[in-house]
Amino acid sequence: MSKSILNVYQGREYPYTYSAAHEPIAKVDPGQTVRIHCVDCFENLLVEEDQKFSDVCEYPYLNPQAGPIFVNGAEDGDTLLVHIEDIEITRDWAVTGLVPKFGLLTPTAVTEMLTESIPDIVRKLPIRDNRVWFGDLSTELSPFMGTIGTAPKLEAINALTPAHYGGNMDCPETCAGNTVHLPVLNDGALFFCGDGHATQGHGEIGGVACEVPVNLVCRFELIKGEAIGWPRITNEDYMMVVGSARPLEDATRIACTGLVDWVSAEYDMNSTDALLWITQILELRVGNVCDPNYSVVAAVERRLLEAG
Amino acid sequence: MSKSILNVYQGREYPYTYSAAHEPIAKVDPGQTVRIHCVDCFENLLVEEDQKFSDVCEYPYLNPQAGPIFVNGAEDGDTLLVHIEDIEITRDWAVTGLVPKFGLLTPTAVTEMLTESIPDIVRKLPIRDNRVWFGDLSTELSPFMGTIGTAPKLEAINALTPAHYGGNMDCPETCAGNTVHLPVLNDGALFFCGDGHATQGHGEIGGVACEVPVNLVCRFELIKGEAIGWPRITNEDYMMVVGSARPLEDATRIACTGLVDWVSAEYDMNSTDALLWITQILELRVGNVCDPNYSVVAAVERRLLEAG
Amino acid sequence: MSKSILNVYQGREYPYTYSAAHEPIAKVDPGQTVRIHCVDCFENLLVEEDQKFSDVCEYPYLNPQAGPIFVNGAEDGDTLLVHIEDIEITRDWAVTGLVPKFGLLTPTAVTEMLTESIPDIVRKLPIRDNRVWFGDLSTELSPFMGTIGTAPKLEAINALTPAHYGGNMDCPETCAGNTVHLPVLNDGALFFCGDGHATQGHGEIGGVACEVPVNLVCRFELIKGEAIGWPRITNEDYMMVVGSARPLEDATRIACTGLVDWVSAEYDMNSTDALLWITQILELRVGNVCDPNYSVVAAVERRLLEAG
Amino acid sequence: MSKSILNVYQGREYPYTYSAAHEPIAKVDPGQTVRIHCVDCFENLLVEEDQKFSDVCEYPYLNPQAGPIFVNGAEDGDTLLVHIEDIEITRDWAVTGLVPKFGLLTPTAVTEMLTESIPDIVRKLPIRDNRVWFGDLSTELSPFMGTIGTAPKLEAINALTPAHYGGNMDCPETCAGNTVHLPVLNDGALFFCGDGHATQGHGEIGGVACEVPVNLVCRFELIKGEAIGWPRITNEDYMMVVGSARPLEDATRIACTGLVDWVSAEYDMNSTDALLWITQILELRVGNVCDPNYSVVAAVERRLLEAG
Repeated sequence: MSKSILNVYQGREYPYTYSAAHEPIAKVDPGQTVRIHCVDCFENLLVEEDQKFSDVCEYPYLNPQAGPIFVNGAEDGDTLLVHIEDIEITRDWAVTGLVPKFGLLTPTAVTEMLTESIPDIVRKLPIRDNRVWFGDLSTELSPFMGTIGTAPKLEAINALTPAHYGGNMDCPETCAGNTVHLPVLNDGALFFCGDGHATQGHGEIGGVACEVPVNLVCRFELIKGEAIGWPRITNEDYMMVVGSARPLEDATRIACTGLVDWVSAEYDMNSTDALLWITQILELRVGNVCDPNYSVVAAVERRLLEAG
Repeated sequence: MSKSILNVYQGREYPYTYSAAHEPIAKVDPGQTVRIHCVDCFENLLVEEDQKFSDVCEYPYLNPQAGPIFVNGAEDGDTLLVHIEDIEITRDWAVTGLVPKFGLLTPTAVTEMLTESIPDIVRKLPIRDNRVWFGDLSTELSPFMGTIGTAPKLEAINALTPAHYGGNMDCPETCAGNTVHLPVLNDGALFFCGDGHATQGHGEIGGVACEVPVNLVCRFELIKGEAIGWPRITNEDYMMVVGSARPLEDATRIACTGLVDWVSAEYDMNSTDALLWITQILELRVGNVCDPNYSVVAAVERRLLEAG
Repeated sequence: MSKSILNVYQGREYPYTYSAAHEPIAKVDPGQTVRIHCVDCFENLLVEEDQKFSDVCEYPYLNPQAGPIFVNGAEDGDTLLVHIEDIEITRDWAVTGLVPKFGLLTPTAVTEMLTESIPDIVRKLPIRDNRVWFGDLSTELSPFMGTIGTAPKLEAINALTPAHYGGNMDCPETCAGNTVHLPVLNDGALFFCGDGHATQGHGEIGGVACEVPVNLVCRFELIKGEAIGWPRITNEDYMMVVGSARPLEDATRIACTGLVDWVSAEYDMNSTDALLWITQILELRVGNVCDPNYSVVAAVERRLLEAG
Repeated sequence: MSKSILNVYQGREYPYTYSAAHEPIAKVDPGQTVRIHCVDCFENLLVEEDQKFSDVCEYPYLNPQAGPIFVNGAEDGDTLLVHIEDIEITRDWAVTGLVPKFGLLTPTAVTEMLTESIPDIVRKLPIRDNRVWFGDLSTELSPFMGTIGTAPKLEAINALTPAHYGGNMDCPETCAGNTVHLPVLNDGALFFCGDGHATQGHGEIGGVACEVPVNLVCRFELIKGEAIGWPRITNEDYMMVVGSARPLEDATRIACTGLVDWVSAEYDMNSTDALLWITQILELRVGNVCDPNYSVVAAVERRLLEAG
């Protein structure tokens, strides 16, 4: 463990892709706590309600990330653990709204139709008393990283798309107190993050959460020589696997298959027993049903896997 | 409110369809508490682990229901409220297992493939100390009705399929303390229920929960002249809408659209505001991803819709 | 073969469901040629362009069928062959249009959204010179039965939904010269048909074809003791299997699995060889992507399965 | 038109991604006929039936492409026309087979399950007399480019995935005599091609076509300042749009929406009329239902859009 926190600033153009082609903005050792300074998913450019999303954003320059961060010692085939210590919201308001042709309940660029899209709307939501306010309604802050992951091998994927390396999963479980396990597919792992959310409901159905700039305070750890296929999230209580795909049942299949295999291995159960029992105790949490791939978290409580 | 509970027994063949063609087994008044005696989804015929599912069940004679119950005064266009007071498990063991070509993680009759299905397996799980036991692992009882609904208009749909009238939603929220709102599509509503689950994880991914015979203790109430499109579930804290369809995102779309519309109406918000806010506070719970239609519950906490 | 054609008229209310609960309108012997008189899918009630679909149709009273016809000698487990000899269009215009919340390119009752549906539009298209006319554009008549099938076991399914027993497949291959193979699931097979189409593009993407009243001229044949899981269509050149499900890839999976199995059996190939070869020669034809289940035809030419 | 054909050889490592990051292998003028020499999708490394796919291929080093070719004068916002003059098969046998966890009728890396995958099988199919032979069965050669497209903006996408820039569409219409229209998203368009197929059935359901090394003989043309969203294919008779997505209905929605818009513009019809008429005359051809995105071609005959 390191004594002091290393602040990491972007200091150059934000990457809009998860890719090994970007020059690292920092090289850090496992164990070193870092504070990564991130803009919001609109690059902090949406500041007034009379703006429109289309005034400031143009595909594919969307969802700017911080990174990549080179983790010393990481090699293809390892697993990167990201211990999230804190997610500091660095603005006293969130921005939300509707983006044309984006979201679950409108025709989109993928679910194309001949009928009208939802409109282009921007809303600023004050943050005070540890709550986000929508007029006189409010909800608790529950900050997490909407987008977090490592560079894929060979490819450069837009930062809107969650996949096997993480990315834009929009899962509320990527929050302080949890550890995100990511596959290492390139030397140095090449960690990216962004898209801070002050809070978000399951599925991010409207397409936009309570978007805020944040500092991700985290510490990296490496598991050498152990590869994982899809991101995992752990804490003292839970084992979780995240799957991302379309349609939504395929995201669920990936997450559940991964969880059954993991529980089988860790608790020395055969696959049939693991399936039978997980069927009775599984928790499914829909991360997003708006992004190019949908994301689902399959979770089990460890206490239900232990005798007693 | 009535003073005593009316016990309702099937007393004739179990219906395997949700349909207005079945003769009612009882006629009850709103306000009358009833105790409806139900067999398990295997008609209580799986009693030994060396049996196979295929020994006792043959399509379409699956998931026998109790009912229909004629609710006096119910007419097409009303809404039936089912206040669930208790779900009494009437056996000290549950049955679970795997059914060939059924479940999320195997080729099925719908997701047909040329490769092997999961095998036919039966397991008996003891119930004691308010827990279900799988060897030396255990989890809390959390009983609910896997299947509950009213007869559709004109049609007779197999009891495995959830749809707009309810049916085999496999949503853990159809439990004691909650009120299920069902569309009335025929005179007398024609209420059915069955498929008691001692507990079940989200999605019922293996295809079979902890199946038990149960008594459903409930009380009916009518909302005259108010129709709903899809089932709702309420309690003091939550408003919930259940959607059932394939693929899973369409089930989610139905549930979320219904919830946005309902919240708009009840809290006098326009549809855009309701969508923006629900996006931040929504809870999605996957009922099933194994049945002919998948089911998703979209839920919001009422306190987050009220100023303060 | 019978000498004369037996005319079959409905003579009572049209059924809106595929179900064994309807009284047969005729009992016919295999080999007897019948002419079944059918109204169009709007019960011949849309006759002016200033009408709206919603003026004349209300769910679930949609797509009235002729039938059921009891085929003497048919028993559960047999296969019914329907040799289509002719489809006679009995009106000199077709009706088409758009139905709100129906079709591939609009939010629907299943793919529910918060945005606007397509409008309610009615168009009359003249038929002359063996062509259907849309203003000064025209296309060849290519009449077929949009809906054709047998009663399912136990269930009563609305006539809009294609399934394992046939129904509203909207496949242009159910036309004169072809033989439709249907599972017999009840005594007498209980054959239904309706929804005559003067012509239709693949997928019926707008939701409404060139709808016409027709007479189906056909002859029944029974294959005793041989059951099929899903409809087949044959002619001298082709073997075809129809699958119906959502999403569209599952309909395709059903059709392709059925075709591989059938070709394996008929041409004495193992399943792997059949898959390898069919992959190179398959024709897929999308029947509908607008109905409650989508339908896909998987077809192979027999000449490509025979040495030489 | 140029007088002589320019032969283009790879001359360096094959790219496995569609990306602007690769150095062009040639710069060519519009109008110049080129012959692009391509290896098969297994890099010509599968040469014996006792090999396995997994012996020679490892994700993500799959489907090696020829390219990129820089088309002089092409700029972001243009459209690149690729006039396919010939596809020359350069080997007297094709390779096909089954790839574990790939194909429509097996659990895959996306449709993950706990059950067994199809096996790893390699087959060599002789080509003679203009036919491909599978034992004593045979079918006509019908060569086309399985993979063809331009570099996307910013991203680098694996060559297995079809998308808005083309890529691995596996559509038999990318054949000699047809013109493929591709969006230009980078200076020089950056054209890639590969994955020659001697023939293939619709959907490539087994996952592997009759794979052959080919020379693509084609001529480029630019339409300056006119952008398209998705690939189009044209010949004298047809207008076609290709959509790629999951689930399969979304690929179909993209293709059909694109076609309705294009026909509206080109034939001066309003969108409603275009939809109504295309519904009656559409042809849908399923390119693939095995790749990371599925591809569908929506086609209309021009003669049905012209009066007379």
